[in-house]
Amino acid sequence: MLRISEYSTMAEEAIRSITLPGGDLENLYAPVTYGMQAGGKRLRPTLLLMAADAFGKCPGKAIDAACGIEMFHNFTLLHDDVMDNSDMRRGRPTVHAKWDANTAILSGDTMLTLATQLMMKVDDSILRPVLDTFNSQAIKVYEGQCLDMGFETRQDVTLDQYIEMIKGKTGALLGGAAKIGALIGGASAEDADRMYDFGMMLGIAFQIDDDYLDTFGNADTFGKPIGGDINNNKKTFLMTKALSVGDSHSDALRIALDMPAGPGKVKVVSKIYETMGIPAICKAEVAAYSSKALAAVKATSLGDAEREAFRKLIDKLTGRSR
Amino acid sequence: MLRISEYSTMAEEAIRSITLPGGDLENLYAPVTYGMQAGGKRLRPTLLLMAADAFGKCPGKAIDAACGIEMFHNFTLLHDDVMDNSDMRRGRPTVHAKWDANTAILSGDTMLTLATQLMMKVDDSILRPVLDTFNSQAIKVYEGQCLDMGFETRQDVTLDQYIEMIKGKTGALLGGAAKIGALIGGASAEDADRMYDFGMMLGIAFQIDDDYLDTFGNADTFGKPIGGDINNNKKTFLMTKALSVGDSHSDALRIALDMPAGPGKVKVVSKIYETMGIPAICKAEVAAYSSKALAAVKATSLGDAEREAFRKLIDKLTGRSR
Repeated sequence: MLRISEYSTMAEEAIRSITLPGGDLENLYAPVTYGMQAGGKRLRPTLLLMAADAFGKCPGKAIDAACGIEMFHNFTLLHDDVMDNSDMRRGRPTVHAKWDANTAILSGDTMLTLATQLMMKVDDSILRPVLDTFNSQAIKVYEGQCLDMGFETRQDVTLDQYIEMIKGKTGALLGGAAKIGALIGGASAEDADRMYDFGMMLGIAFQIDDDYLDTFGNADTFGKPIGGDINNNKKTFLMTKALSVGDSHSDALRIALDMPAGPGKVKVVSKIYETMGIPAICKAEVAAYSSKALAAVKATSLGDAEREAFRKLIDKLTGRSR
Repeated sequence: MLRISEYSTMAEEAIRSITLPGGDLENLYAPVTYGMQAGGKRLRPTLLLMAADAFGKCPGKAIDAACGIEMFHNFTLLHDDVMDNSDMRRGRPTVHAKWDANTAILSGDTMLTLATQLMMKVDDSILRPVLDTFNSQAIKVYEGQCLDMGFETRQDVTLDQYIEMIKGKTGALLGGAAKIGALIGGASAEDADRMYDFGMMLGIAFQIDDDYLDTFGNADTFGKPIGGDINNNKKTFLMTKALSVGDSHSDALRIALDMPAGPGKVKVVSKIYETMGIPAICKAEVAAYSSKALAAVKATSLGDAEREAFRKLIDKLTGRSR
């Protein structure tokens, strides 16, 4: 196995070498390239390449699929930014802001088909299972986004419903990336399914950690302004957990939700979370899902070196709050 | 071969029997069902079923792919209605109007993946060529839509550029439907490509005929208000042809484009078209592309009965202006 950073560099280079038509079609494809070149951790293609290497010592064979999974992820970002009316992402204007909503919709649609085409660059023998995995994770992502949009107007979201939502929005794509990489590496159907579980559990751990950092993280290392979720009354793990307790603190939180957005609201809500012990609960949940992710890898036929590589990946992704 | 109406009834019944999840996901899937149950001619699945029957006497084997091609078509309608800010389609509120733009975007995305899943219900032996055809027609549709959006702000669109645009927006999907049906029916690669050409030429003929009817059709049988394209300064075949002549009539037309929308504008522009002989030119073009479509079918290994069925389809689709 290579170092994690070496897989992400491989992915980054392949993504940057994608060339698309220009000319009269500049308006369709320039936003695709712009979206793809936003950088970021390249987590999904990195995981896909790692899984292919772990099972088949063939990260190179998986490079198109790695680009495909990142293309899919960026398609969802283009459309999410239209739906959320977001103007900035990773320090740059979104496609929706730099061009317009119609361009973001149409270029996003194009990215979904381009992603499928990239995903199809696998051997005939695994074409169907790879595409079945790709399509079913896509459906789960849309379902997760639908649940998330529905949560905006609700205050009765249960923890189970929250977990169901992030399984779709975050877990399914990581699960799909790990499973597709495993399939390309020649893993058995059982091992590929376990790798799906690995990605899914990793995704849940990662999302809860991300929710934690949005309130209690360090603005310099987190990369986003702290308190954004609180100001948007977002149904995060923290909020859902705190509201579900049903004690006087939950009542206080419900009142705080009506405060206007601003540093005051962030301070009040953070304080309630701290009083309720939410930060420690978050960390325990992140640890629990990380353990489940590791257990899934251990249930495969992979050896110690590969297990260790995936353990490091979990650590890298969920260790930010420590 | 069956009658054309029998294929469309088969398609209609299969489309109406598609069941999707509800519950918490009602907001995601109800618009999909709503979009799919809008009725219409079911032209694309009908063509797909006809091609499968022509080559393999197996329309039933193609029923999932037929639903898939209609699902794809309806996905583009959901997104087009957001992009055009259209509130009505086929006498009903659009998804964008009945729910909202975000719902139309997300349910549309879901339809594209559902369409791919339906398309995958073919034998392994033709999975790759079927999906390659499906994906490449999808890309052409997006490219056509991109060109069409670019035309809105231009008055120098050439006839070649117009044809390129409708090849994407209308031709590619009909070409894809015919080719996929042929592949499912067991056609050779060469015959399948000829059927793509058939669908493509039929699509161009159909679109020019549709452009003609939007100005010179009968409101009762056309199903849309007459003159909509003129009032929207749409770069139709008629407009593109008339502007490209470059004589005094073209100059008069350019001035008329600045008139406010309304019956007066429709009357003035129609009169200019008539003076320039545009209606006859339209009919000649429709006839020319219809001949090309028929020639493509004749170049296949199909017998007389099948050729005759496709000739009737051309006649049905382009005979509306006679």
